[in-house]
Formats: sequence, C-alpha cells, structure tokens
Amino acid sequence: MTVLEKINNPQDVKNLSVAEMNELAQDIRDAILNRVNTIGGHLGPDLGIAEATIALHYVFDSPKDKFVFDVSHQVYPHKMLTGRKHGFVDNARLHEISGYSNPTESEHDHFVIGHTSTSVSLATGLAKARDLKGENYNVIALIGDGSLSGGEAYEGFNNAAELNGNMIIIVNDNEMSIAPNYGGLYKNLAQLRETNGQAQNNVFKAIGFDYYYVEEGNNVEALIEVFKKVKDTKKPTVVHINTLKGKGYDPAVADKESYHWQVPGFLNPQEAAAPTETYTSITKDFLLNKKQQNEPVIAITAATPGVFDFNPEFRAKMGANFTDVGIAEEHAIAYASGLAKNGAKPVLALMSSFVQRTYDQMSQDLALNNSPATVLIYWGGISGADMTHLCTFDIPLISNIPNIVYLAPTNKEEYLAMLEWSYNQNEHPVFIRVPAAELVSTGKPDTTDYSKLNKYKLEQSGEKVAVIAAGNFFGLGEQVRAEIKNQLGFDATLINPRFLTGVDTEMLESLKQNHNVVITLENGEINGGFGEKVTRFYGNSDMKVLNFGSKKEFTDRVPLEELYNRYHLTKELIVKDIKEVL
Amino acid sequence: MTVLEKINNPQDVKNLSVAEMNELAQDIRDAILNRVNTIGGHLGPDLGIAEATIALHYVFDSPKDKFVFDVSHQVYPHKMLTGRKHGFVDNARLHEISGYSNPTESEHDHFVIGHTSTSVSLATGLAKARDLKGENYNVIALIGDGSLSGGEAYEGFNNAAELNGNMIIIVNDNEMSIAPNYGGLYKNLAQLRETNGQAQNNVFKAIGFDYYYVEEGNNVEALIEVFKKVKDTKKPTVVHINTLKGKGYDPAVADKESYHWQVPGFLNPQEAAAPTETYTSITKDFLLNKKQQNEPVIAITAATPGVFDFNPEFRAKMGANFTDVGIAEEHAIAYASGLAKNGAKPVLALMSSFVQRTYDQMSQDLALNNSPATVLIYWGGISGADMTHLCTFDIPLISNIPNIVYLAPTNKEEYLAMLEWSYNQNEHPVFIRVPAAELVSTGKPDTTDYSKLNKYKLEQSGEKVAVIAAGNFFGLGEQVRAEIKNQLGFDATLINPRFLTGVDTEMLESLKQNHNVVITLENGEINGGFGEKVTRFYGNSDMKVLNFGSKKEFTDRVPLEELYNRYHLTKELIVKDIKEVL
Repeated sequence: MTVLEKINNPQDVKNLSVAEMNELAQDIRDAILNRVNTIGGHLGPDLGIAEATIALHYVFDSPKDKFVFDVSHQVYPHKMLTGRKHGFVDNARLHEISGYSNPTESEHDHFVIGHTSTSVSLATGLAKARDLKGENYNVIALIGDGSLSGGEAYEGFNNAAELNGNMIIIVNDNEMSIAPNYGGLYKNLAQLRETNGQAQNNVFKAIGFDYYYVEEGNNVEALIEVFKKVKDTKKPTVVHINTLKGKGYDPAVADKESYHWQVPGFLNPQEAAAPTETYTSITKDFLLNKKQQNEPVIAITAATPGVFDFNPEFRAKMGANFTDVGIAEEHAIAYASGLAKNGAKPVLALMSSFVQRTYDQMSQDLALNNSPATVLIYWGGISGADMTHLCTFDIPLISNIPNIVYLAPTNKEEYLAMLEWSYNQNEHPVFIRVPAAELVSTGKPDTTDYSKLNKYKLEQSGEKVAVIAAGNFFGLGEQVRAEIKNQLGFDATLINPRFLTGVDTEMLESLKQNHNVVITLENGEINGGFGEKVTRFYGNSDMKVLNFGSKKEFTDRVPLEELYNRYHLTKELIVKDIKEVL
Repeated sequence: MTVLEKINNPQDVKNLSVAEMNELAQDIRDAILNRVNTIGGHLGPDLGIAEATIALHYVFDSPKDKFVFDVSHQVYPHKMLTGRKHGFVDNARLHEISGYSNPTESEHDHFVIGHTSTSVSLATGLAKARDLKGENYNVIALIGDGSLSGGEAYEGFNNAAELNGNMIIIVNDNEMSIAPNYGGLYKNLAQLRETNGQAQNNVFKAIGFDYYYVEEGNNVEALIEVFKKVKDTKKPTVVHINTLKGKGYDPAVADKESYHWQVPGFLNPQEAAAPTETYTSITKDFLLNKKQQNEPVIAITAATPGVFDFNPEFRAKMGANFTDVGIAEEHAIAYASGLAKNGAKPVLALMSSFVQRTYDQMSQDLALNNSPATVLIYWGGISGADMTHLCTFDIPLISNIPNIVYLAPTNKEEYLAMLEWSYNQNEHPVFIRVPAAELVSTGKPDTTDYSKLNKYKLEQSGEKVAVIAAGNFFGLGEQVRAEIKNQLGFDATLINPRFLTGVDTEMLESLKQNHNVVITLENGEINGGFGEKVTRFYGNSDMKVLNFGSKKEFTDRVPLEELYNRYHLTKELIVKDIKEVL
C-alpha cells in the first residue's frame, strides 16, 4: 500500500513521519505523471510543489485555514491530499476532477482559478472579511511559477501589505515562468536565492512584508520548520521557497519549458509526424522573413510562447526582435503601442482567453492612440475547455472598441494578405483572429486592399437566404449552403465578412433585393458579438435575421459536439431554424 | 513682461538663469490657477511639478528626447513650455488646449493619455523601438501622484528593467494619490524620503534600476544637477523626486485631496447651497446604516473617493469597513470577490471610465465564481468629456460577461431596492448603474423581487410602438411617449427594463400582439450594448426595432447637445425615425 493510498483528507497527512511524507511526495509525483500521461495537463509546476503542499497541510488546518492556489498550475498535489486522489490514480475517474482549483469539488478550494496573478488579491479579500467578522485563522496564498509578473499580483501585494493581520504569501520560486522568467522582479528573486535570502535589496521587505527564505523548497522538514514559524502570524508575511520545477522526472527538469504542460502519451512519444504547414508555422515564417530583411519587426508574447510555437530556436533567430514580457498582457499592449508609435513593427500574439487580461490598454493605450500595432488572437472559438480557459469572449471584448480593426481570415492566403497589410499600414490598431483550425489554402494569392474597411466578400451568389460566415466558421457556412441546396433546392448566398468590427452597409442593403433571411455564423459569444451588428442594421426592414454563435455562459469541459448541438451550430440544425422563418 | 510670456518653446527655457526659472515656475502656477479657476481641471499635481518640468526641458531636448507624462495629471507646465501657454493665460483660448497629453496639439506629446499607470509601459515601447532602429536619445516617463499603484505600472517597471539601454523614470513622489496613498509601495517611498534615498530596502534597486533621490523636488538647481547626471544613461534609471502637491497655493497644500481637481470659480467660492439628496448621498446613507447595524459591510474605492463623496468624514465613520485600494481596479474586483466569498458585504464604487481597467477580474475572479459582491458604476452615459474619460463603454463591457447581473435603476426607490436586494443576496455578482442624473423620487417604495432576473417593468400600456428606456434615459423615454401622442395621436407603450444583462422574453413576445415597432434607449454605446439583445430577439419576427445610443467612437469634448443630435437622442429625432418605419 502506498502512502497516498492511506491519505483521504489533510488530517491523515498530520500523522505521517518525515520518511512517510517523502514517500508520499514520490507517490504524488507518480500520480501526476499518470494523470498527465493519460489526459494531459500541467506537469512541471505540479511535480515541483509536492513537498511544499504536504508541508502546508501538515502545518496548517485546511479548510479552516484557507489556501488560495494561484493560476492552479500547482494545485494537483493539494487535490490529492483533499479527497480527490481518484482524479490522479484511477484512470476511469480522471475526468471527474478538473485541472484547476474548484470549490464545487471540495471545501478545501475557495475559488475557481485558472487565470494568473489573482491569488493575493483574492486572499486579501478572504483575510479582510475574516478580520471584519472577528474570526481567527490563517489565509495563505501560493503564488509563483511566473504568476508574479502580472499587475494584479502586484496590486494584491501592495494592498496585502496594508492588512494589519495574518496573511501569508508563499512565493514558489521555481526559477521559471511557463517559459524562462523575465523582468526586474525575477532579478531580485535570483539575488535572494544567491544570498540565501539575505540580499540587501529585498522587494518584499521593501513593500512591508515580513520575509522568510527556504533554500531547500523540496525538503519537507525545512518547509515545515518555517511554516510553523509563520503560522498564526499577525503580520503580512512572505515565505520565499526555492523549488525545482519538474522534480522527479528528469526530462521535465532538463527542459522546464516543454514540460510545463504535456499531452497524453508523452511518456512514450510516438515518432513526430512530418511537419505540416499550419497557421502557426506561416506566422513564424512571416516574422522571420521580416527580421531577415532587417525590418524593425518585433514579435511579442506574454509568457505563452509555446502557444504560438515561438520555440527557443525561433527566439534565437529573432534575437532582439523578440520580447517575452512575462505574464503581463496589459504591458504587452501598451508596449506594442509605444513600439508602433516610434516606428517599429510590433506583432503581439495572445490567446483569446488571455486577451481578457487587458481591456483598458486596448482601448486607451492602443485604440485611442490609433497605434498601428498588429495583435494576433489565437484559439478563438468554442471548445470543450475548462471554464477558466474559454475562448469565446474575444469578439464582444475587442470588436466594440472604437478604432480597432478586427479581421477574421478564413484561409491561408487571406490570413497572409491581412498580416502583410496590417504590418505595412500606419493608420489602425489591427487584430487578426488566427483561425483555430487546420490550414486551408485556396492556392490563389489574396490581393484585397484591406485599407477599405468593412468590405465583405461575396463568395457565392444566390437567393432567398444569405449566409454570413465569419472566420473559422466559414466552412460551416459552406456546409449550410450545400444543405440548403440539398433540402430546399435553391442556391443561397454565401458571404465571408472578413471584418468583425463593422458591417458592409452597401452589401447588406443589396441583399434586400432578393433575400428574405440573413444568418450570421461566428465562433464565439453572440451577445455583443459580430452578428448582432448585422441584425441591428436590418432592424428597420423586413429582413429576418438569425444569429448563431455561443450563448452567454461559462461552460466547463463540455464536449464540443454537445455545445454545437446546444447552440444549433450544425448544418442540419441551422437549416431547420432557417426553414422556420422562410 | 513675465518670464512665461517669453517662452515659446523648450529652447527658450534653456537660456534662462536659475532666478528666471524660479520666476517662470511662479508664472506657471499663476497660469494654472487662472485656467482651473476659469474652466476647471487638475490643480494640486500641476502646481507641484512646475520646477521639475522646467528642469526637464532645461536638461533634455524635447521632442528628440521623449517625455511621457503618466495620467496627464501633471502635464500643464509641460504644455505651457511647448507652445501652448495660450491654453492657460488667454481666457478666450483655454478650450483650445485639452487637459491631457495630446499629440495632435504638439510634437512634444507622444500619446493621448488620461488613464493611469501607463507611462512606463508606453515609454518602454518607445525606447525599444529606438534601440531596434539604432537611434540615440533619452526616453523619460514621468509617473507619480498615485499612479504607481496600478498593475500596468508595475508590469512596465518590471520590463523596463530588462531594457538594456536608456530609460529614465521620474517618480514624482508628492506623498499623495488623488486621496492619501495606500499600499506597501508607498511605505517604501516614505522610508526612502526619511533616509534621503538611503533606506536599505529600495524597491527600485531591488528590481534592477539605478536610483537617484532628489529631496528638494521643487528646487530647480537640485533637479537640474541630477537630471544632468542621468541624461544619456545607458541603463534603466529611476529618479525619485519629492515634490509638494499644491505648492504655491496654500489651500491646495493644506487640503491636497480636495484640491487635486477643482471646479471653475474655486478661488472665490460661493456659499454652498443647502445639501440636497443625491444618488451619492443616499448611497452613503445606505452604507453608514449597515455599518451602524454592525453588518460586515465594506465600502471600497480605487483612489477616487471624491467621485462618490466618500469624504474624510464618511471614511472616519466607516473605519475598518472602508478600503481605498489605490489606483488598482483589478485588485479591487478580486478583493471584493474574496470578501464576498468569505461572508463580508463588499460594495465597490467605480467610475464608468475606470471600470475599463478591469475586465478579466470581473470575468474570472468575480463572475466565474458567482461572488455576491455589489459594484456601483457611476457617471455612466454620454457626456462632453475629454476622449480619455468617456463613460459610454461600460454596458458592452460588463453586460456580455456571463453570470453578472447589471441593473439600471431609474429613480431613488428603485435604486435603493436594487441596492438592498444586491446586498442581501448570495447568488450573483451585481452591478448597478447609479443614475448619472438628478435624483428622481416616486415617493413609493419599490417592492420588486429582483431575484427574478430579467423581468422588465411595464410602466405605461399602449399600442403600435413600444419604448424600452433604460436607466437614466427613462426620462427621455417618457418624453418620446408624449411626443408620439402629440405628433401621432396614440399612446405608445413605455417599458423600464431595469436589467441590462438579459431580455424579458415573455414581455417582448407579448408586444408582438399589438405593436409594430420597438425602440430601445440606452445611455451608452449601442454596439454590443443592451438594445442589440432586444433586436436579436425580434430577428425572426416582423417587429421593426430601432436602437438608440452612442456610436462606436471616441469623442473629444464635444458638447452634449451636439452628441444628442448626432445620435438622434432627442424626442423629435427619435419620433422622426419612428415615423419612417411605422
């Protein structure tokens, strides 16, 4: 029987010897490897935090004492110690447990958390409520693995320091973000590591925290000793622990970036398929080509270079023409605005879910200044993702900001033409929704002049019904047109809008001549999205308009097929809806 | 002739003696007082920065060297020295110059800036573009007056530290935000002031900056000496200057908070009118009442207590039940979420324009967690404001986030009923758009059960046309109804939707019986707003729908009447539009 098998709740951890705890850490790591190898997930950060999580549960009393795990990259061991080990060891039940902090799973989780740099702010709220109610327990935020670089973390630290009471922040310093750390703060962490916590300049002390350093952040005894010291402190306190990302699995220690997250089957990788052209690869080629021409191009990521395959080789080739700003999307947008205003050519890549972390900067720093930066939005669309990582909100978020041009290419040639246009123009901030789909090529270069804004493309002429199908739902639009022909016997009109930020009033007006129904298809939330602008255009006319997209809701790991059915995003359901209004 | 009269560009500053520069500082202050007393504006921060601005222009060579003035609270002296003094001394021309950094006014301004904490990020972009292009000059960000507390500032510092080149950040430490400073960082600034910059813990050194301290931040000679030292530095450098907010006008020194911004005529104030009941006053009464009942209420502001009249007297009465988190809206939302989850009753007040500074926190920290916090949005609506302070975007921003309930009260009793409901319930994050209008009272308590979401209120039954008038446009709806009677001779239906986050499908369905036209009125951007949801509902029907609100655009100090005409927001223009579709 493994030690983990004996652990059903945190109380069980308190009865272990140090030797058993070390065994438990190994059991936890085996379980992490099992889960990630079976269904994918965060690997390196979870492997590194096993001992610290054990020590936390040994010293503190969850759920009375409250843990807040930042970004949830490091929450797996905590889940295993709080009644959820079946989500890691029982391969039939892995999907019962999410990869993120989740109060519906356990009273030991206090928030749904999946975006980064939030723990200290959330914990400060818990602690202040405790104090207002005259209660007495520890509130512990565990932050790290790169999540220190986000502005919300800093705002949280700044205000936690003012809290005249117990608040313990564990800074898990594994010397990494998702990719290598970047930024002044990490220099200070390095100094502190080098001096065993004694460096003269200490950013945490500077802003008012008591400070403890644990050099051996994977040593349960060392951790327990310090956690006992700070337990029940009456002051805001930082415990800086130096852990090894990927500990226990050598490849993950050797290549921390690649093993931050892994896919099913990584333990026995198949031979890699021959590389094929993707939207990601042609983007990289575009950027490298500009660099080779000595253009002032600058590729920017906010700590997720892997999402765009900005791998070390690409970064080396780009050299000074690449910046990873860390998890700092607000800065990334403002930085891009400054670059563009001073004649450089920034191309910033962001995941749809993470562009949410910057709105005011898109509006004030970028759009109000009409800075001609290019921002690429990846992964936009409906998916079966965890509720913390949905990518359905970027169209409502971005497309209602004045001055921004948001483009939705449907194929390779269109995408490259849009990218080239955006790169060369100096009038607009341009966002491009890189198709979250396999690459489609027409084989014919796109010679459209995109400086003529909001001009839709009539792809197929027809009658009665016009299908306006945006971005990676263009293929669905083609299917719907075929299904209309099949079921109703006539040719519908098919339109590729290309622009998400405005309507082609001329084309929409012309549709009135021989159409009764217009439908819009967009791969994201309908509320506030692209389609509603079309509907509003027709509000004073007899045209019937149906908008298709996702509902305003947070979905949690719902299979894509189920969502498509729920939202009527199949050719059959769409044609059924059309028939009802024809 | 004053010295200011002789200054037409920065070059003229370079020829002045120290005595003349001191005279110039006084001239600048006189001009600031003249402008603010005539048309209102930022007072204290501009008075305090006169000498530093003179010294900057004396040492550096704008526009080759590039200044970025954070939040523009301190940009008036810079404007006067760069060809725009007529905007301060010539009372016929004051309105020609905005109160904010603005490149269309001068080549010495590089960005439109009005929101806070952006300068370091923007300047980092300028500096990096300079380096990529192999150019050589100074980039100087001037930050302070509270703007250090925003997360974007921290992200900027963190990344500026990595810039292997010239980047000078002037930290204008006037010991104040808009209200008194709050947060750990400000403790460090205080330590640094107390030790003449020698404190062991130095947050700027800690994250990798060279650091200089100028104790006499209103002494041009001392400033010039240090600015000369850092000019052309090859390293990211902080110059921390200690200035006196309000200098030269004693009341502004004595009461820094009240004189941060002032209204026309403040130099000769009229006797205050007897206090009347306002939405602000009844909000304060509500909060104080909860506090007196020993409820775990907590009022929160993000550095703009004055906007909500959370004055020192109110704050003293609230005691520990009040937090000013500083300019840190992201933290404010997450903090409120944490408070609500732990049983406290947070009521966070934000200006519409500044709620833009937090989207991901509204979505992830608050909405995804369904934390029952109350957020009050003030000043929402179309106005003649500067383009940096528009309040027209909050409905599209907030109302498309799942789980949030966004309410738009139309009168006192409705507002108080909504506030009381929100305060007591535990199911939803609730936002309330506090009417930016004079208080309207029906005299009858509102007994609506707001837990029944998205139930509109039928205020007046009628036929043919239904007017759905939200929030502080309800009065306009009443006018439209009267005008329809007047011009068309029938009674229209008048509906108060109360909910901005959903449609009352039952009521909308019932309107089909005897109405041909529905119009929606909302005081904000139509794109992505409330009205489009109504239009989408009717997309499959014969109902004509017209949406009224503001266009997707940044307007800059355009008179309200002109905007109302542009957007057809008068009863006459609306009825004209209705007649065209009837």
